[in-house]
Amino acid sequence: MTDTTRDFLSDFRTMSAFGATAGGGIDRQAASTGDIAVREWFGSRVTGYGGRVVFDEIGNQFGLFEFTPGAPYVFVGSHLDSQPLAGRFDGSYGVLAGLHAVARIADALRRQGKSPDVNLAVVNWFNEEGSRFSPSMMGSSVYTGVMDISVARAATDLTGVTVAEAQRNAGWSPVVTGDDVPQAAAYLEIHVEQGKELERAGAPIGLVTSTWGARKFRVTVRGEQGHTGSTLMADRQDALFGAALIITGVRRMADGAEPGMLQASVSTMEVLPNSPVTIAREVRMNLDLRSPDAGVLVRAQEQVGAVVTDAEAEAKISVDLELTHGWDLNPYPREGVELARSVAETLGLPYREVRTVAGHDSTNMKETVPTVMLFVPSVDGISHNEREYTSDEDMLTGLKMLTAAVAEAVDRFRI
Amino acid sequence: MTDTTRDFLSDFRTMSAFGATAGGGIDRQAASTGDIAVREWFGSRVTGYGGRVVFDEIGNQFGLFEFTPGAPYVFVGSHLDSQPLAGRFDGSYGVLAGLHAVARIADALRRQGKSPDVNLAVVNWFNEEGSRFSPSMMGSSVYTGVMDISVARAATDLTGVTVAEAQRNAGWSPVVTGDDVPQAAAYLEIHVEQGKELERAGAPIGLVTSTWGARKFRVTVRGEQGHTGSTLMADRQDALFGAALIITGVRRMADGAEPGMLQASVSTMEVLPNSPVTIAREVRMNLDLRSPDAGVLVRAQEQVGAVVTDAEAEAKISVDLELTHGWDLNPYPREGVELARSVAETLGLPYREVRTVAGHDSTNMKETVPTVMLFVPSVDGISHNEREYTSDEDMLTGLKMLTAAVAEAVDRFRI
Repeated sequence: MTDTTRDFLSDFRTMSAFGATAGGGIDRQAASTGDIAVREWFGSRVTGYGGRVVFDEIGNQFGLFEFTPGAPYVFVGSHLDSQPLAGRFDGSYGVLAGLHAVARIADALRRQGKSPDVNLAVVNWFNEEGSRFSPSMMGSSVYTGVMDISVARAATDLTGVTVAEAQRNAGWSPVVTGDDVPQAAAYLEIHVEQGKELERAGAPIGLVTSTWGARKFRVTVRGEQGHTGSTLMADRQDALFGAALIITGVRRMADGAEPGMLQASVSTMEVLPNSPVTIAREVRMNLDLRSPDAGVLVRAQEQVGAVVTDAEAEAKISVDLELTHGWDLNPYPREGVELARSVAETLGLPYREVRTVAGHDSTNMKETVPTVMLFVPSVDGISHNEREYTSDEDMLTGLKMLTAAVAEAVDRFRI
Repeated sequence: MTDTTRDFLSDFRTMSAFGATAGGGIDRQAASTGDIAVREWFGSRVTGYGGRVVFDEIGNQFGLFEFTPGAPYVFVGSHLDSQPLAGRFDGSYGVLAGLHAVARIADALRRQGKSPDVNLAVVNWFNEEGSRFSPSMMGSSVYTGVMDISVARAATDLTGVTVAEAQRNAGWSPVVTGDDVPQAAAYLEIHVEQGKELERAGAPIGLVTSTWGARKFRVTVRGEQGHTGSTLMADRQDALFGAALIITGVRRMADGAEPGMLQASVSTMEVLPNSPVTIAREVRMNLDLRSPDAGVLVRAQEQVGAVVTDAEAEAKISVDLELTHGWDLNPYPREGVELARSVAETLGLPYREVRTVAGHDSTNMKETVPTVMLFVPSVDGISHNEREYTSDEDMLTGLKMLTAAVAEAVDRFRI
């Protein structure tokens, strides 16, 4: 084992202690105590490897390695925030691998006395997970202009704390604005697959060629309060029963689809008044549909409409189904995929072209700059779970691949 | 309209302003601001009608009208606390009618220079509703020794506040203990029916002859966290899907029962981690079964077991079903029912014998002393809802009936 791989694995162990859970995972929701602590530690590692830390106004953390003042940057990044009781690899692996890739290349360039036309930056995007503050991918959405910063800063958690308040409390500085915000020339991200395709194929590297499409809804089920004891079954307009009919209907629709062609989920629920002797008057929940096929997604949306109509009739409730956001299935830029393929072939690394079901910060970045999205295997595809696992060997192979891809990007993507 | 009926209706309007909601109802959960305010107002009305206010250690509020120091009391009561967004009649009508009945009789006795062998008390039981602090009927359960006071005082609301803390904050005094706690010789309660039987029969008075049986469960559904995007449908162990299968299964079981023979409800739900991109690992909910037939209740419990087994298989989750409390269907004491019947006949008031599906404080009291439970009609049977309604005429008829029944109880139930 070389010094640099030893350093990476040592840094990975240290990083995993921030927000560590008893079950071997982490709990570092955006701007929580754990997220604040890991960001401070990460900033000190950036400095230790010779970089400089700045934040933008939405709290994205940049580790800058500059060669040519004023030139744009090749960005390498992901996110250090997590879901509650999450795995220690999701996002975190990509940020740390990004730092090590960038630091190695910067070091090599300096030792060779070279000064490229672009600068290098590792980026830790703010609130990729969206569990504490909705929606997900908040930092990269604001960075790329998909979301207005005032909307993002006004988002609240369940206790009513806004993003703006949480960031004020975190005290991240220095904050740069306007022309001082680092500009991207290209973007690279490496992430655990959160699926089983690489493991099944025995390939250590996944080249992400496209995203699945996604449609996300806010579902509001409206019934009528009543006494759980004395309101006759026939008189009930039970919002929780209506919600349960939608959950089971949507799930069975997805179970009936061709395997791997449709994912459908409800995972949040707010029940009003949530009292043991009062029938629910309202239930608010999410609904998340994903498919690699545009036609399947359209048909699923129609089927959801039928599920809702049936639920309204059986439970005597009314339902509002509001599309809150989504993305079409679309390809990663050809030049990024080709760069990654040529690097993998040069290194002799077995790879597989894959689609990503989950959204990533690269989903935003690929719309603005040449983007490379890489995967490493996840054991059993388990993710958003403390048991998420990727072996040291697979992490190191991914780091090797990412480092070579960043070096190639520095050569190719100049202004 | 006599002065006394005018006073009752005027007091009723004033009382309904405490915790009033925009929808015409009230929101006065136990020891909330609204409950604290209405109790203070109610205490001043007790004093205004010549009574004296004391509290016991669990916060039951007694308005005492004494004739024979040291003698037990005929209790007349109900509760001023409410569900969230509730009607203004449930409980509150019974407490105010109790005060007016007791005050009229005390006044008449004093004017006649009579001093009965028993004293009179109106009781406002603490936390009958059980929405903020579980379980329901807390004050009367502690009073009758069904529940230990230390257990009741340790119950917490959703923000972690205990009953003991909420009561300390409320500052109810004076608190009497030991032999100074008023002892009951008999108990009378009047309540809105929360059903349609009286309305349908055109009877202004219901004589409650028995309770339905009830079984209440805590249901814990355990699955496995996962990413809603990337976890394949076939790999999911979705606790929220499992919960939805149980809710729909239990509801359809009740819908399939003989009408009026089984009520089954789930009305509370806590989802963990309740994040938009993470499959639920755990769902906690309640389950409430009620029937006027012991055999139906036993069979329903067996059917719930089958629903749970099916849900475990389909959703690949595991379920804990824990019986938390319940009561058997049982009769109100014969002497109380007979007393009420003879009073109604004397007054020439049409009445109907009914069963109560809902639990009341009288459910506890009837196990210790002769008890009369009366109902007045509820329009459309609507309850635990801002639209709950009972006409002034029906309230006044109920007050007349209650007053005569209390007077009769004073004569009959001496020590």
